[in-house]
Amino acid sequence: MKQQLAREAFAAKDASDPLREYRNAFVIPEGTIYLDGNSLGMLPHACAARARQVVEEEWGRTLISSWNEHGWIDLPLRIGGKIAPLIGADADEVVVCDSVSVNLFKVLASAVALRPGRRVIVTNDDNFPTDVYIAEGLCGLLGPDYELRFASPANVERALERDVVAVSFSHVDYKTARIEDMAAITTKVQAAGALAIWDLSHSVGALPVDLNNACADFAVGCGYKYLNGGPGAPAFLFAARRHHADMRQPLSGWLGHAAPFAFGRRYAPATGIARMITGTPPVVSMALLESAVGIVAEAGIERLRAKSKEMTTLLIELVARECPGLELASPSDANRRGSHVIFAHPEGYAIVQALKARGVIGDFRAPHFVRLGIAPLYLSYVELWDAVGRLKQVMDAREWDQERFRVRAAVT
Amino acid sequence: MKQQLAREAFAAKDASDPLREYRNAFVIPEGTIYLDGNSLGMLPHACAARARQVVEEEWGRTLISSWNEHGWIDLPLRIGGKIAPLIGADADEVVVCDSVSVNLFKVLASAVALRPGRRVIVTNDDNFPTDVYIAEGLCGLLGPDYELRFASPANVERALERDVVAVSFSHVDYKTARIEDMAAITTKVQAAGALAIWDLSHSVGALPVDLNNACADFAVGCGYKYLNGGPGAPAFLFAARRHHADMRQPLSGWLGHAAPFAFGRRYAPATGIARMITGTPPVVSMALLESAVGIVAEAGIERLRAKSKEMTTLLIELVARECPGLELASPSDANRRGSHVIFAHPEGYAIVQALKARGVIGDFRAPHFVRLGIAPLYLSYVELWDAVGRLKQVMDAREWDQERFRVRAAVT
Repeated sequence: MKQQLAREAFAAKDASDPLREYRNAFVIPEGTIYLDGNSLGMLPHACAARARQVVEEEWGRTLISSWNEHGWIDLPLRIGGKIAPLIGADADEVVVCDSVSVNLFKVLASAVALRPGRRVIVTNDDNFPTDVYIAEGLCGLLGPDYELRFASPANVERALERDVVAVSFSHVDYKTARIEDMAAITTKVQAAGALAIWDLSHSVGALPVDLNNACADFAVGCGYKYLNGGPGAPAFLFAARRHHADMRQPLSGWLGHAAPFAFGRRYAPATGIARMITGTPPVVSMALLESAVGIVAEAGIERLRAKSKEMTTLLIELVARECPGLELASPSDANRRGSHVIFAHPEGYAIVQALKARGVIGDFRAPHFVRLGIAPLYLSYVELWDAVGRLKQVMDAREWDQERFRVRAAVT
Repeated sequence: MKQQLAREAFAAKDASDPLREYRNAFVIPEGTIYLDGNSLGMLPHACAARARQVVEEEWGRTLISSWNEHGWIDLPLRIGGKIAPLIGADADEVVVCDSVSVNLFKVLASAVALRPGRRVIVTNDDNFPTDVYIAEGLCGLLGPDYELRFASPANVERALERDVVAVSFSHVDYKTARIEDMAAITTKVQAAGALAIWDLSHSVGALPVDLNNACADFAVGCGYKYLNGGPGAPAFLFAARRHHADMRQPLSGWLGHAAPFAFGRRYAPATGIARMITGTPPVVSMALLESAVGIVAEAGIERLRAKSKEMTTLLIELVARECPGLELASPSDANRRGSHVIFAHPEGYAIVQALKARGVIGDFRAPHFVRLGIAPLYLSYVELWDAVGRLKQVMDAREWDQERFRVRAAVT
């Protein structure tokens, strides 16, 4: 065991890693070990080049004509089509626009319209906060007849009365990395006549997702985590084709119109997934996402998942050996675990700061969790080894006691 | 008159133009006369530099830590504070996020919550389509008790029953460029107990707007027209301070939470305008907008308006003299006219295409309008002269008859 976990063994894994070339596709800052690709993916060189092109050439030189000449108008559907194979969807079932929060609102409101007479939205209390808040916002807008009900994915059937519109869960939990059984839960939800909505923010680009195999109704997901689309990259939205004809969403902006440039005086939804588009997309941020998605697709989601599982398993083993004060709070079974690992410690916040001072970027998650993300596209095995070595130094020296690591920043 | 309108006279105007230096702040493609800054502003050199910085340095090198270290988390409020003086608002009354469409939905829904028991939203039938569509979408979501009622700004009092929640108009009409009397209309609307909402997309950056002097309740506006923030730049949202404590909007995403990074399990709105934020903003597109706004602010809105009025007046005079087949469809009084001019012609579409082939970029607006925008920050008087000269060539030769100019593109 100890031998398996020697640094040389990790270097050997890098040498035989079928994904090792992809690391060269990214800007890797000197001296940084980045275990936060699940918050913000690293910068692909292709995105830096694309940023110059879309700003300096397309906007700068071709100006408004770029909407046609450089295909800006097709970005939402075109990028959606590129994300689709990563999530088990058909190309015409996915669109990129707005944020996860805004898209979830559209999806939940569409579900309400598809299930008239039903008045309950179900989610889990410990879902990513915005997923809860957006459902709260929709219920509040619709009035006191509407209810937000909480249920854990493991016990969803307890919440499934005949009044349930939809159940909205994250496929991979942002905190624990627990993977839900999408197919089984979707089956239960649909058996009660409700719709199944999945947030793929912590899945897409890190593990295979098969929405259509699971018969999912709707999904949303994030462009700036494992897809590496850049800070605040636009989000995606999936709607199963069987809903396309009847679905209606209230953020019925002009770019979701059947004929946006006819400037008709009443809204008429576009055919298909395009009706989920609202306003003019942030083209520069969209273009970066498009470049980045191509890299994930080329690397292949199965290979990424294999490397990710091995790396999170090694991380857990190393931490257990070297840093026994950290308590694993993620599933120990790699098949039930996404691409990050979370450890509980009362001094979690200061540990993350101390680790950062040693060049290892992780994440703090309230109230006391150290979250370490594995982005298999660019993280090397040796980095993983070295990261745990530095974490051990932090833990052994109780660096969390140092005042400088205890000051809270605006974004933690 | 003729002498006043000679090309030399236009060159002399350029020489004495107090804004002439600002043209150098923009990328001006060789051979193009750009009369479409009201659709997509030109690229400021500052934005090209900022794009490289935010992508290559901030995202690339500082990664997730940029949210604190490079102030990404403050972008929505910080850019809002920079737009505020351009629209007669206080810095803490404006925020930048999402699209105009999404922001209008938030504002309309906030108005509904602030006027319980009232069920009618009023807008004008010929408002920019997305403004109508979004109001339709909200009414549709809220149910059959809610009504979208149409009234022209000139006769708004006819629509003002006691059931009206809010009246939503554009300050400058996207088609005719007609300026509404914001203060007078707001007074009438509020006298009926309703709220006044203004879309500033075709005003901001081109003419002075004084929301607080007019006592406006809410406003939205566009970042990619006269603010030059780049294609699909995020939009802004204004809410008068007197509404801050009570306003609630249903797109209650995590970044509008009082403590986003506490990851609380229930939504608690942030204090003030920040509760209008929803999800994670597209940072790269936001950063470009911030750079661009600074240029408009520095140039000064009064000087921009003076040049714009003179230029639209000259454009109308030149077209009347040189291109009599084009019928003015904008107000003839410069004080009632925004910064673009629209002309009617049965062959409007093909005329715009023919003009483009001659290097002059204008806009077609259905069903038969040639729209020519004046962006006083970078348009020169000589360009204006030359544009009309080329328009005259198009008209004299009836170039609209050529088949190549009659093929419709996706975005027109």
